[in-house]
Amino acid sequence: MDSTPASAAQDFEPTVRTRIKRLHERGHYDRKTVTEILDAGLVCHVGYVIGGQPYVTATAYWREGNRVYWHGSSASKMLRHLKGGVEVCFTVSLLDGLVLARSGFHSSINYRSVMALGTARLVADRDEKLAALTAFSDRLTPGRWEELKPPSEQELKATTVITLELDEVVAKVRTGPPNDDEEDLDLPVWAGVVPVATTLGEAEADPVLSPDIPAPDYLGQITIG
Amino acid sequence: MDSTPASAAQDFEPTVRTRIKRLHERGHYDRKTVTEILDAGLVCHVGYVIGGQPYVTATAYWREGNRVYWHGSSASKMLRHLKGGVEVCFTVSLLDGLVLARSGFHSSINYRSVMALGTARLVADRDEKLAALTAFSDRLTPGRWEELKPPSEQELKATTVITLELDEVVAKVRTGPPNDDEEDLDLPVWAGVVPVATTLGEAEADPVLSPDIPAPDYLGQITIG
Repeated sequence: MDSTPASAAQDFEPTVRTRIKRLHERGHYDRKTVTEILDAGLVCHVGYVIGGQPYVTATAYWREGNRVYWHGSSASKMLRHLKGGVEVCFTVSLLDGLVLARSGFHSSINYRSVMALGTARLVADRDEKLAALTAFSDRLTPGRWEELKPPSEQELKATTVITLELDEVVAKVRTGPPNDDEEDLDLPVWAGVVPVATTLGEAEADPVLSPDIPAPDYLGQITIG
Repeated sequence: MDSTPASAAQDFEPTVRTRIKRLHERGHYDRKTVTEILDAGLVCHVGYVIGGQPYVTATAYWREGNRVYWHGSSASKMLRHLKGGVEVCFTVSLLDGLVLARSGFHSSINYRSVMALGTARLVADRDEKLAALTAFSDRLTPGRWEELKPPSEQELKATTVITLELDEVVAKVRTGPPNDDEEDLDLPVWAGVVPVATTLGEAEADPVLSPDIPAPDYLGQITIG
C-alpha cells in the first residue's frame, strides 16, 4: 500500500477529464462523498481498451485507504490484460430512485456514482494480495475470514488482484424531487420519486450444509447500496 | 428501426471477442436469455474511448426489437462523442446474490449480465427519436407518456438518443449455491447464498404536487432488476 494517511484525507482536484460542465451542481470532489459511495457499493464496472475496442466488465470491488481493488481468476481476459498496468475507468453507480416529472424531458433518475481514472496495476506481492483479499471479506462479512479454510498457495496464485490508486476522481449525485419547468407545475399529472433500493433476502443455506451449523450473525449485518 | 423480425428471433453467434473461455458454462448466446436480462435492467454502463482513455458512463437504457437505446442531454460529453458513431461496449449487470463458500477462493456472486459490442449511432430522425423516447416511458410506466406534457421541438432537439444494434452479444449468468471443493464440505463454516434484489419503495409525491392528483396505478407496476 503506497497511499499515505495525508493523501487519503485530501479532496480530489478536478481535471479536464473529470470536471463536470453540464449540471455541475451534481459533481463532487470531496473525499467524504467519494468514500461513502465507494464503501456503499459492491459491484464496479471497469472499462479498458484492447486493440482500440472498449470493454466494460462488472466485478466485485472494495476500498482500502486511497485505493480500490478488484479480483478474479488469473485466467480471465480482463485481468490478464490489466495486470500489465493499463489505463482504466473505474465506475461505481448506485440507483436511488426514479424521478417522474411532468414532462419526459425533466424525468430523471436519482443516483450516486463515482468515476476514477488511472493506471491499474497488479498486486503481485503475496502478502499484499492476502491482506487485500482479507479486507474484501471483512468489508462484506466481518469476522468470516477467520472461519474459512485459509487460501492455499495455489489458490492465491490463481487469484489476480488488481488495484487503482484514487487520484483523478469525481462523484456525481442526484437527489430530490423533479425539477419541472415553472409553467408545468399545474399540469394534471402525478410527479414525484419512486425510491429504489438494494435489499438482501433471507440467507439460503447450501443444500449440503450440515444442519448443525447455525446462520452466523454477520449475515444480518451485510450492507450494499 | 432497421431490425427485422427475422434477425430479432435469431440467437447470437459467439465471436473471438465474446466467446467465454473460462467458466464457459456461464456464457449464453440465445436470444431469450439476452432479452430477458436486457428487459429486466434499467441502468447500463457504456464504455467508449476518447484519445486512448476508456470512459464508462452509467445511464438509463431500454430495448426495442434488436436494438438498445440510451439518451441524455445533447450537451453531455459522452453523447457528444458517441453521436459520430463510435465503438462501444454496452454492459448490463444485475446482482442476484452473495455466494459465501467455505473458502474465499470459491466465494462468488450470483448475477445476470449482458455485454454487447458494436458501433453506436445517433438517432437523428425526429420521429424515430420521439418513438424511442415513448418506448422508454412505456417500458417503465405504461400509459404515462400520454399524460405528460408532449415534448417541445426544443426539448427533442436538446435530447440525444443513441442506439446500438444487438449483433455481437454475450450473456453471463451465475446461479445457485457455492461450488466448494469436495474435501471442504465438512468444514464447520456456514455456506450458502444471500439473495440480493432491487426493490422499489413507496412513491414520494413531489412536495408541490396538488393533493387532488392521486398516485397512478402504474407506480405499483414498475419492475427493475
